[in-house]
Amino acid sequence: GYLEKDAIRGNDTFVTFDEIMKQAVQNEVDFVLLGGDLFHDNKPSRKTMHCCMEVMRKYCMGDRPIVFEILSDQAVNFSHSKFPWVNYLDSNLNISIPVFSVHGNHDDPTGADGLCAIDLLSCAGLINHFGRSRSVEKLEISPVLLKKGNTRIALYGIGSIPDERLYRMFINNQVTMLRPREDEDGWFNLFVIHQNRSKHGATNYIPEQFLDDFLDLVVWGHEHECKIAPVRNEQQLFYVTQPGSSVITSLSPGEAVKKHIGLLRVKGKKMNLQKIPLQTVRQFFIQDVTLSEHPDLFSPEQPNVMLKVMAFCQEKVEEMLEEAERQRLGNSLTPEKPLIRLRVDYSGGFEAFNTMRFSQKFVDQVANPKEILHFIRHREAKDNIKGKETPPQNENFVINHITPCRSKTVKALFVFGTQFKIFWMKTRSIKGMKVIVRILHLPSDVQSRLYKATGTLSVSEKNE
Amino acid sequence: GYLEKDAIRGNDTFVTFDEIMKQAVQNEVDFVLLGGDLFHDNKPSRKTMHCCMEVMRKYCMGDRPIVFEILSDQAVNFSHSKFPWVNYLDSNLNISIPVFSVHGNHDDPTGADGLCAIDLLSCAGLINHFGRSRSVEKLEISPVLLKKGNTRIALYGIGSIPDERLYRMFINNQVTMLRPREDEDGWFNLFVIHQNRSKHGATNYIPEQFLDDFLDLVVWGHEHECKIAPVRNEQQLFYVTQPGSSVITSLSPGEAVKKHIGLLRVKGKKMNLQKIPLQTVRQFFIQDVTLSEHPDLFSPEQPNVMLKVMAFCQEKVEEMLEEAERQRLGNSLTPEKPLIRLRVDYSGGFEAFNTMRFSQKFVDQVANPKEILHFIRHREAKDNIKGKETPPQNENFVINHITPCRSKTVKALFVFGTQFKIFWMKTRSIKGMKVIVRILHLPSDVQSRLYKATGTLSVSEKNE
Repeated sequence: GYLEKDAIRGNDTFVTFDEIMKQAVQNEVDFVLLGGDLFHDNKPSRKTMHCCMEVMRKYCMGDRPIVFEILSDQAVNFSHSKFPWVNYLDSNLNISIPVFSVHGNHDDPTGADGLCAIDLLSCAGLINHFGRSRSVEKLEISPVLLKKGNTRIALYGIGSIPDERLYRMFINNQVTMLRPREDEDGWFNLFVIHQNRSKHGATNYIPEQFLDDFLDLVVWGHEHECKIAPVRNEQQLFYVTQPGSSVITSLSPGEAVKKHIGLLRVKGKKMNLQKIPLQTVRQFFIQDVTLSEHPDLFSPEQPNVMLKVMAFCQEKVEEMLEEAERQRLGNSLTPEKPLIRLRVDYSGGFEAFNTMRFSQKFVDQVANPKEILHFIRHREAKDNIKGKETPPQNENFVINHITPCRSKTVKALFVFGTQFKIFWMKTRSIKGMKVIVRILHLPSDVQSRLYKATGTLSVSEKNE
Repeated sequence: GYLEKDAIRGNDTFVTFDEIMKQAVQNEVDFVLLGGDLFHDNKPSRKTMHCCMEVMRKYCMGDRPIVFEILSDQAVNFSHSKFPWVNYLDSNLNISIPVFSVHGNHDDPTGADGLCAIDLLSCAGLINHFGRSRSVEKLEISPVLLKKGNTRIALYGIGSIPDERLYRMFINNQVTMLRPREDEDGWFNLFVIHQNRSKHGATNYIPEQFLDDFLDLVVWGHEHECKIAPVRNEQQLFYVTQPGSSVITSLSPGEAVKKHIGLLRVKGKKMNLQKIPLQTVRQFFIQDVTLSEHPDLFSPEQPNVMLKVMAFCQEKVEEMLEEAERQRLGNSLTPEKPLIRLRVDYSGGFEAFNTMRFSQKFVDQVANPKEILHFIRHREAKDNIKGKETPPQNENFVINHITPCRSKTVKALFVFGTQFKIFWMKTRSIKGMKVIVRILHLPSDVQSRLYKATGTLSVSEKNE
């Protein structure tokens, strides 16, 4: 329900949530896993709650059979619920896609009853809220144990906890992840966490090193930047996927990264995460300009310098708008008006100008006309927008090459996938899966890691 | 969710809602009909919404088959819903008791989306919200047509509308109740309305005479006093039942009337409404004292008169507390602390005293210690508490006599039932139904009406 009262952007979250759940249906997933913050507000509006329930009832109910079992004690997994069992085993509900979720920091439990927004969905039988702890001193995480065929997943979760508190619990050895007694190593261990991943201070984030090394994949919620391709933590030897938010809530570079959801396939201990780009997410372009870097165009002493700067900025915005239109071409699902941000470093004697008049020019083309320009001084190097100094982004790569991929290569591909856009074709199992890759540019360091890792994977730079 | 944050009374509404729905299950009703104001607040708290959904999911879902059909176009009846069909016909929901409700004035639709609190329940598949109009000028009420065996019910409803507006619509002939084309007279016509029934001004109530005379029974919501036994409107020749609120929201005489729900049985055009007393409703005793009526006890000129008055009031409260305890005896469902109100008319030179000290004495025995005493001057005659000038209340009658009752007598019994406590034994049909009556006191005027009306009903004053 972010910005739900905005005339232009008000429905963005709902539309994209609909797209995501529709993807879940189309891909015939066994379940949907949410990393928290399904809601932006602790007390979502009636409209938001209504939209959310509507989407879930529409897509998560139906006759498609659910073929995985739950082996753990559901009364433990869902002990805080009034209906402490997984929704698809409730004989009164015809669930086709169970949704599992931890709560986030935006929709965490509050009040005397310790209820949170997703508990309403849980009570309505639309969500399975897990990873909830009663203690603030000690965590004992009992996994939801899922079994389908020979594949068994131990699903661990911790709903959002203030970072400092959880950090302290980890430091004091008060976080225990229980493991199934039988065939301990036969499980695929999946962990969902909703905390700061990037360091915001000494103890208000959770270092990946804190997490148990028996884990196979960590789904990291909370962080908004989409870094969904699993990254291997070389110390702990697990992978971390950070799906990111499905809606842009701040006009910062992290949100400009193309939004994806992940389709995770697990077979035995092997996994594969397919990135699915979201079509309905509003485009967001951000660019930095430093006025003092253009001495040929203007200097602070010039008469009418402000008009020149304004024209320059206008040109930059128009460039971004053109790029947005070009990328949007043929995609009817993407909203027409993009989000545009131009950060103008006006240090060196320049003056900021009134952005109101400037905004007026773009009121019909831009979703955030009042917030296009952002005047700053002395941009620090570290805050530079990606795509300049950072490695090339997904957007630089298009797919055209098809090659069979053996299961042995799967892990390697995640490393690869962190830097390049890779699509997995939909197949039933990891074996025999196809991957389509076209590489337009491949930095040498990545290339070497790639070839080292992939083994039998063949990557081609040729066009078809 | 009335007073949900009150330490003593906070759970009253939830407990009684649970009792009501449990009664629905125990009585194997075909459906539950609510007259609006399921919620006290337009935006119910999370706790309230959660409790409500919990109760409904617990009692309204299950394997008991539903044996009535819907003959009307559900897309019309529930046109404002995202799931415009009755919940029990949704193949994804295993509904055992469908709930039909109009919205009340407390939970009416608001905001740009025109959603109301019960729409969340509707979206969750727990309620069937009907009687909603899109126009503010004109009402065309299309009934929900229900059929079970040979009995057909046309269920009409109007969700709460500002009284003046609805009054004007009626005056301007803008309210149309559509009737089924086939066999128009073969239907039992049931109408649910949520408006002022008692006159609050020239046009801010709805006179019963406004309603179509083809109706058989009007269920009148909104009014809090329980007048559930159907009263015949001699002009329109329909009956009106006013269930009243299930929780006491004001310390006024109307709320002191014992709370009931009604179990309506309809066969063909015949009906029978069984009053079911609610066990979990907090007791409420209200009494008036007029200090100037006790010249033998105290006069304004006496020294220490205030202490004497206080002792007198204390004695009255203790009497009510004793009576409450006596009546509560053996009923473990009734909350221990009753609501007590003593209205003290101190006109004639007396002075009010500080109620704080007085309240302290009853803090462990009374649910509303701070509001026990209410000082007033010159009580008007019309506001006298019932039980003094009004006919004897239900509480005066206990049941002990069993007599078979033929269907012909049913209508007459409602007249009778407005003044006396009558229980219908649970039977499958109106014919052969049994009624148990013990009459301890029977005012002569009522007796004559009774005998005139009942025909074959035998009423006995004897104890068994």
